[in-house]
Amino acid sequence: MAASWLALLLLGIAVPVAPAAAEDGYDLWLRYAPVHESRLAGYRAHATELVVPADTATARATRDELARGLRGLLGQAPATAARARRDGAVVVGTPASSPQLAALKLDLSGLGEEGYLVRSVRIDGRPATVVVANSDVGALYGAFHFLRLIQTAQPLAALDIREAPRTQVRVLNHWDNLDRYVERGYAGESIWDWHRLPDWKDPRYTDYARANASIGINGTVLNNVNTSAQALTPAYLEKTAALAEVFRPFGIKVYLSARFSAPIEIGGLETADPLDPAVRRWWKAKAEEIYRTIPDFGGFLVKANSEGQPGPQDYGRSHADGANMLAEALAPHGGIVMWRAFVYSHEEPDDRAKQAYNEFVPFDGQFHDRVLVQVKNGAIDFQPREPFHPLFGAMPKTPLMMEFQITKEYLGFATHLAYKGTLYEEVLRADTQVRGPGSTVARVIDGTLEAGEPGRSPLTGMAGVANIGVDRNWSGSHFDQANWFAFGRLAWDPYLEAQAIAEEWVKMTFTTDPAFVGPVVAMMMGSREAVVDYMTPLGLHHLMGRGHHYGPGPWVAGGPRADWTSVYYHRADDKGIGFDRSVNGSDAVAQYAPPVAAQFGDIDAVPEEFLLWFHHVPWDHRMASGRTLWDELVLRYGRGVDYVKGMRSTWDGLAGHVDPERHAQVAAFLAIQEKEAQWWRDASIAYFQTFSKRPLPAGQAAPPHSLEYYESLQFPFAPGDGK
Amino acid sequence: MAASWLALLLLGIAVPVAPAAAEDGYDLWLRYAPVHESRLAGYRAHATELVVPADTATARATRDELARGLRGLLGQAPATAARARRDGAVVVGTPASSPQLAALKLDLSGLGEEGYLVRSVRIDGRPATVVVANSDVGALYGAFHFLRLIQTAQPLAALDIREAPRTQVRVLNHWDNLDRYVERGYAGESIWDWHRLPDWKDPRYTDYARANASIGINGTVLNNVNTSAQALTPAYLEKTAALAEVFRPFGIKVYLSARFSAPIEIGGLETADPLDPAVRRWWKAKAEEIYRTIPDFGGFLVKANSEGQPGPQDYGRSHADGANMLAEALAPHGGIVMWRAFVYSHEEPDDRAKQAYNEFVPFDGQFHDRVLVQVKNGAIDFQPREPFHPLFGAMPKTPLMMEFQITKEYLGFATHLAYKGTLYEEVLRADTQVRGPGSTVARVIDGTLEAGEPGRSPLTGMAGVANIGVDRNWSGSHFDQANWFAFGRLAWDPYLEAQAIAEEWVKMTFTTDPAFVGPVVAMMMGSREAVVDYMTPLGLHHLMGRGHHYGPGPWVAGGPRADWTSVYYHRADDKGIGFDRSVNGSDAVAQYAPPVAAQFGDIDAVPEEFLLWFHHVPWDHRMASGRTLWDELVLRYGRGVDYVKGMRSTWDGLAGHVDPERHAQVAAFLAIQEKEAQWWRDASIAYFQTFSKRPLPAGQAAPPHSLEYYESLQFPFAPGDGK
Repeated sequence: MAASWLALLLLGIAVPVAPAAAEDGYDLWLRYAPVHESRLAGYRAHATELVVPADTATARATRDELARGLRGLLGQAPATAARARRDGAVVVGTPASSPQLAALKLDLSGLGEEGYLVRSVRIDGRPATVVVANSDVGALYGAFHFLRLIQTAQPLAALDIREAPRTQVRVLNHWDNLDRYVERGYAGESIWDWHRLPDWKDPRYTDYARANASIGINGTVLNNVNTSAQALTPAYLEKTAALAEVFRPFGIKVYLSARFSAPIEIGGLETADPLDPAVRRWWKAKAEEIYRTIPDFGGFLVKANSEGQPGPQDYGRSHADGANMLAEALAPHGGIVMWRAFVYSHEEPDDRAKQAYNEFVPFDGQFHDRVLVQVKNGAIDFQPREPFHPLFGAMPKTPLMMEFQITKEYLGFATHLAYKGTLYEEVLRADTQVRGPGSTVARVIDGTLEAGEPGRSPLTGMAGVANIGVDRNWSGSHFDQANWFAFGRLAWDPYLEAQAIAEEWVKMTFTTDPAFVGPVVAMMMGSREAVVDYMTPLGLHHLMGRGHHYGPGPWVAGGPRADWTSVYYHRADDKGIGFDRSVNGSDAVAQYAPPVAAQFGDIDAVPEEFLLWFHHVPWDHRMASGRTLWDELVLRYGRGVDYVKGMRSTWDGLAGHVDPERHAQVAAFLAIQEKEAQWWRDASIAYFQTFSKRPLPAGQAAPPHSLEYYESLQFPFAPGDGK
Repeated sequence: MAASWLALLLLGIAVPVAPAAAEDGYDLWLRYAPVHESRLAGYRAHATELVVPADTATARATRDELARGLRGLLGQAPATAARARRDGAVVVGTPASSPQLAALKLDLSGLGEEGYLVRSVRIDGRPATVVVANSDVGALYGAFHFLRLIQTAQPLAALDIREAPRTQVRVLNHWDNLDRYVERGYAGESIWDWHRLPDWKDPRYTDYARANASIGINGTVLNNVNTSAQALTPAYLEKTAALAEVFRPFGIKVYLSARFSAPIEIGGLETADPLDPAVRRWWKAKAEEIYRTIPDFGGFLVKANSEGQPGPQDYGRSHADGANMLAEALAPHGGIVMWRAFVYSHEEPDDRAKQAYNEFVPFDGQFHDRVLVQVKNGAIDFQPREPFHPLFGAMPKTPLMMEFQITKEYLGFATHLAYKGTLYEEVLRADTQVRGPGSTVARVIDGTLEAGEPGRSPLTGMAGVANIGVDRNWSGSHFDQANWFAFGRLAWDPYLEAQAIAEEWVKMTFTTDPAFVGPVVAMMMGSREAVVDYMTPLGLHHLMGRGHHYGPGPWVAGGPRADWTSVYYHRADDKGIGFDRSVNGSDAVAQYAPPVAAQFGDIDAVPEEFLLWFHHVPWDHRMASGRTLWDELVLRYGRGVDYVKGMRSTWDGLAGHVDPERHAQVAAFLAIQEKEAQWWRDASIAYFQTFSKRPLPAGQAAPPHSLEYYESLQFPFAPGDGK
């Protein structure tokens, strides 16, 4: 390419000189940068002609994406045609839309409405690549797969790909308020410009839909689970309908968080009791109104009786009563209810970790078949590491939906590089053992483990709390885009490997150059463990600054609830540290299947990464390393800091392999991360040493400031704090 | 240009096909789009070589900007050289930096540190263009002028331009909170990413500085006048210093809004009494701390004793006491105080319009010579139209700084197209008559009117409340960029014409095509009058929705203060409408010079655009048109709506002359504006008709809804409402 430019200059031809747009991350993994010239001719031979015969909005979006992608990747968009007539055509669609595809008589059974084939075939004797599906949306997904093959430098010969999603409801949860504030958002305010909707439809909404469709996300909950009832008023339904219209061609449904007390707040009723006939009528009428406005509305997400939100328990009713009432209103229209299991009551429990299980398990089998119970990956709250939630496997008659957090509320906000693919993978592969070994969380989520339970709803799903905002790069940092990507890929297929996903993402987002891909993927793969180390090693949890969760706050105590403090969770004292959840303590381990309970409950058998999650452990407890707990703890903190230093060094060495704009931002953020990792290490050690009263291991530097200094730091304007 | 591309394609040369970046407005008026080919050769002959010999940060920014601009405009950046050696060189700098410039012996006297010459000269016998100044910043300003000549299709031959700013302090006021919320912001949240400062310096900060320098803005107040004292803590000073470092090469100083009670809130003192020695010491120490961190810090902006903000009156002291204490702390370091005159006390006045005058005039001559009193253009609050503020001309011994609002709090937010250049021009040209005819507000602001007053500080300045946010196009709409531009140009030279500024802006931002420029400038020139018509015709004011000021609210009554209601201002009753500020009423007219007071105070002499500002007028009052007041009022509302319809029609007809992206957004916003203009007209007429009890003039449609309907509309999440 450079040679061509040089030729032009030598020829004296004026080259248009709009400076190349600075790489700002807006294009995400759909950057479609030119492939390496060594592969160019080969790929072009497999994309000589583009045939997307259907004339639906989805098919047009598919054609546009293929044209855009191939133009970027291969330097030219192939000619479009109504039917394949050249060697190397790409034909995309359904058998119904294309006689040429129909004539291939490919087996599409089992692909459903969203699966697809990507196959190398012959059409009228000429080699071609076909993307075939039962629906236009399936074909769109297949088209993105085809582009991904080129983006990741895969061969296009002899393709025989068969893909269908393993979960049905693959949704983002936006914790976006109607005033555009994003709770736990570190990428600027909400991309939903409610004030100017429905009249102004920002082109960014289309790019949002493209990005999500490219990784198989098929739904989005637009508003915060802590929502205002205003979201259900006619004015906001009209705005929501405008977004639904943009998203529809991309196979994406809109959902809304519903405030349980909406019948009172916007309905003029005196109660929101789910067994009250007037309340039930109100929700039925509201559902009818919604579906008149948005015929393919997805349904409701509900946070009820949690953190002060209203819910059925306010009226002495159960979660099932509440969820089922809403499901009955939505079911006639095809909608669903996602009912969150992240609940804890106003009364302070002996162990918050146990509460969701205690509240939900008794209702297994009592939920309407249009209800999914949405369960966070762990029982506390999106910590850098948690053991899998004990509800997984404990409600065999109820479809449980995974709730992962994509935004990094507890992992250093957007400025810390922490690839969460490994976190997701660890949870999905965790073995609940409820039906013997191999009863993984993934098999709970995709329904295969408990599919035979009588009366069990076939619904399946996965939700990710979005990390998206108006920042130019969408996610607040370039590397946080990987967490959005990884969530989507795992929602589609919970058995994918985090490392393979990281490799895909790096190649699509930056470059396929192995000299870059190798070290960057390696850096990503250890990055979340580094956060665990420098924030909450060995099973410690919930030690962040109060409210905003920015920076270390192991000393946080007092306030309205004990379980909103750090001391509640770490329980450090002169003897040791950790939350005793064994049979001698809160006995939370009993919520797991017996083999798991036995392992977690035994201080000598529990994996060290969960040691302090389940046990109060003496400072001199001997670890696998042979070191005392105290020494091990200090070394883990330091190991986390060292990993960040290593990432900085790796990244500095890659300057020539990536555009200067993105390199500079990542480098600046890594510098912040190192500073903050050190701060976490120093403050945590300064604090815990007041209990351990032990010296630091040899070679470990004392914290440079006093504990009082660390405790004095205040961050009243830290982003994302709930308001 | 197209021909060149064709040639490439014919030659079979692969052309890089990164799709042209969508026009999203980010580049503002520094878009540097290619000039028309008919002018290309001529311009290139005047830019064969670029000589910017100094090696300072400002000179490097100047060179970069010229290279970027010329590359965009002319298709190629000229070669850079250390000294001019070709016909058509462009030489930019100071005589000290360039022997070639020194040898020209140009007269730079009177240009000061910011003025410049742009001249066609001969250097060593060869034609050249020189941009010469006494300082690097002056040369930077001249370079932008040179680029503007090309951008606006002016000839480059025989240039003889001599420019120097007519005011010294040309600043933006950002009403940005430290949590990034922007009070009265309609362009997204604050561009200041405080959380990630000082470590992450967003490249956008540099583009912000470029844009401001290009129009002569030389300072920016980073935080809201309603500020937290936290802005003065060491952590935030360090963040502010990082911004100052980015801005410094562009001649832009940073200022901070200072909370008067900061000595209590962050200083640990018990009082903020400006005569208390400990308080005075605290501010002196704070100033020293600031200047250690930011050696060229600009100074403080203060909102004191207004709308609940703390101030010297809390301690029985005067505005002069407060301002002078701060000035004494800053003066040794070269800083200034901008003390706002937008004050009103907790006690409800008989006429809020009179309060600033009453509070400030007695202190004329008592302010420290490093204090500017910053006065809004009118006595109420940035209405679509207000008579000039009576303080202008009433404090001859005190430099008064103009405060214009660039953001459109009361003019329809970002979605209404309203060019405020005409508003600024109207105010600046208003004749205070304090020293006879020709005593314009512009002459008060630039100091020429009262320069001879003994002891008067030579300071001059103009402030604009910014309309900038993280929206990709900076200002929330493409046309609102023009208001930022117009403010800057008028701060530099308050005698410029609004129409000429609009022409410049349209050419620089869109195209020099006369078929586009003519109708668009015409549309802009009448656009603010249209807002006056459909919101607040004939001198009505402050009738917007409560708090957020979105949409009509003439019925707003009750609440904490009468002067925060609409009924306080319009005073409609069975007999008529309007606020009697004549000698028979509040006598606010007496604050103007006698000839002005006589005109404004006489119902038959007052300009009709101020009729209801100064008089309570019977519904059947006969207007110049021969119509009754009521009929005229109704027709004015309709005229405003019709103007918006005309703008839509004009804009629709220009689709071929502008990129589709910006065309689409402007078209969508005009559709919103038409809908909202109609809403304003209908709601206002429905309301006022309950008083006038008169039929609508023939041909005027009745409002389609009841008054109750309009009153029922609620917008709890409208943007920009103070929090």
